[in-house]
Amino acid sequence: MQTKTTNIVLIGAGNLATQLAHWLVRKGFCISQVYSRTEISAKTLAENINANYTISINEINKNADLYICASKDDALPEILNQLPEIKGTIVHTAGSVDISVFEGKFNKYGVFYPLQTFSKTKEVAFSTIPIFVEANDSETLQFLKNIASYISEKVYEANSHQRKMLHLSAVFACNFVNHLYAQANDIVKESGFDFDVLLPLIDETAQKVHSLNPIDAQTGPAVRFDETVMQKHLSLLQGDSTKEQIYKLISKSIYQKAKK
Amino acid sequence: MQTKTTNIVLIGAGNLATQLAHWLVRKGFCISQVYSRTEISAKTLAENINANYTISINEINKNADLYICASKDDALPEILNQLPEIKGTIVHTAGSVDISVFEGKFNKYGVFYPLQTFSKTKEVAFSTIPIFVEANDSETLQFLKNIASYISEKVYEANSHQRKMLHLSAVFACNFVNHLYAQANDIVKESGFDFDVLLPLIDETAQKVHSLNPIDAQTGPAVRFDETVMQKHLSLLQGDSTKEQIYKLISKSIYQKAKK
Repeated sequence: MQTKTTNIVLIGAGNLATQLAHWLVRKGFCISQVYSRTEISAKTLAENINANYTISINEINKNADLYICASKDDALPEILNQLPEIKGTIVHTAGSVDISVFEGKFNKYGVFYPLQTFSKTKEVAFSTIPIFVEANDSETLQFLKNIASYISEKVYEANSHQRKMLHLSAVFACNFVNHLYAQANDIVKESGFDFDVLLPLIDETAQKVHSLNPIDAQTGPAVRFDETVMQKHLSLLQGDSTKEQIYKLISKSIYQKAKK
Repeated sequence: MQTKTTNIVLIGAGNLATQLAHWLVRKGFCISQVYSRTEISAKTLAENINANYTISINEINKNADLYICASKDDALPEILNQLPEIKGTIVHTAGSVDISVFEGKFNKYGVFYPLQTFSKTKEVAFSTIPIFVEANDSETLQFLKNIASYISEKVYEANSHQRKMLHLSAVFACNFVNHLYAQANDIVKESGFDFDVLLPLIDETAQKVHSLNPIDAQTGPAVRFDETVMQKHLSLLQGDSTKEQIYKLISKSIYQKAKK
């Protein structure tokens, strides 16, 4: 099958669906239809990429080559259940959903998991995003690898367990990290300065682990077990029990890891 | 006083001292002497910047214009106590140490706090690093501001309380973030892939908060309160109680913050 003539239906119009759709189109792929339960989302995305859209799952194009389900993880089983019979390949994009979710109803299926954080409004370049693919047979695997390699330089095979661990590591490296940025934002405001003053530090912290193992890049009072500073910090956090708990738990974990 | 002819003595030869020394020299300043209790550290840094060095605090040059104490926070009071009488300005570089540490013994003193993470082996460009200065009188403040403005575009005044809050926010945005990278590294290894696959995600997570408030940049199962995924993740972490605790605490905190 010639990859670039692949007729694609996109199921979902959220952050990942939006970014993936834009990148696929930019790379010359044709997305014929967008489905979303939310009309405004379906319509907005479809108009941006010159596709049709539907909010009725029965109206999904039955003759597409590839169906990409980029819906919320929770919504996936219901969508698959309601989906009319299709001949093409179907994939989901979820880190934590097993490939077995497709078993029984579909003949050619797989997973297409880009390891990245997506917002609707912030464009990302897919070229350097690792994409992990899995499929129920070797032909489908090759088909997915071909498509992935058009949009990214980094295409890997990963089974469902590997992908779940990747997703979990991403929760720590991205979702939890972003929350610490949010906490830092609260604290820096109390200093009277803007969050911007933290950006060079945030960038350097991310940049450092490109060349150093995170263990070797660790700095700060906890790794030195500098109790004086840690006590001062805890006293500054008094009244915010969540931040106090996070401070204590992560400091302890840093120190324990350094001792090993 | 002409800033560039300032005769500087550097007290300490650790990560910050090393990086600051290199940058000062690069910007045309003269560091005449390096003091460290550890001979190898003192010697290595001094040789790199064409300075003298000493491991005896009594041999510190008494006629310098500026003494920069970039030692460990804990070591500072003892160093100040042992330091011979000096006429020049003395500053420390610590986020969490009050300016009052200099009271009584010195006439011209202050703080010179670069908000960044430093490793000995990773060079950093000071030009974009915010430097927060404080001094005991306006003349000293101006002197420190002049020096800071030679090495960075971002020079701010901050009193000791503000600086402590800045340092605390930096612990969250850098030290704690780096620890989450270390945790993610443990987990990604269990997937059979290298830490490198997380780097585009780590970079994008840092990049996003340049244009989005961290609250608006939050993604992942916790902010959606996706219990199915969170339960799967906790079951994958079984046996690692520290990571389990971190997972639960930060997920709860993400969800609570999103609800507000």
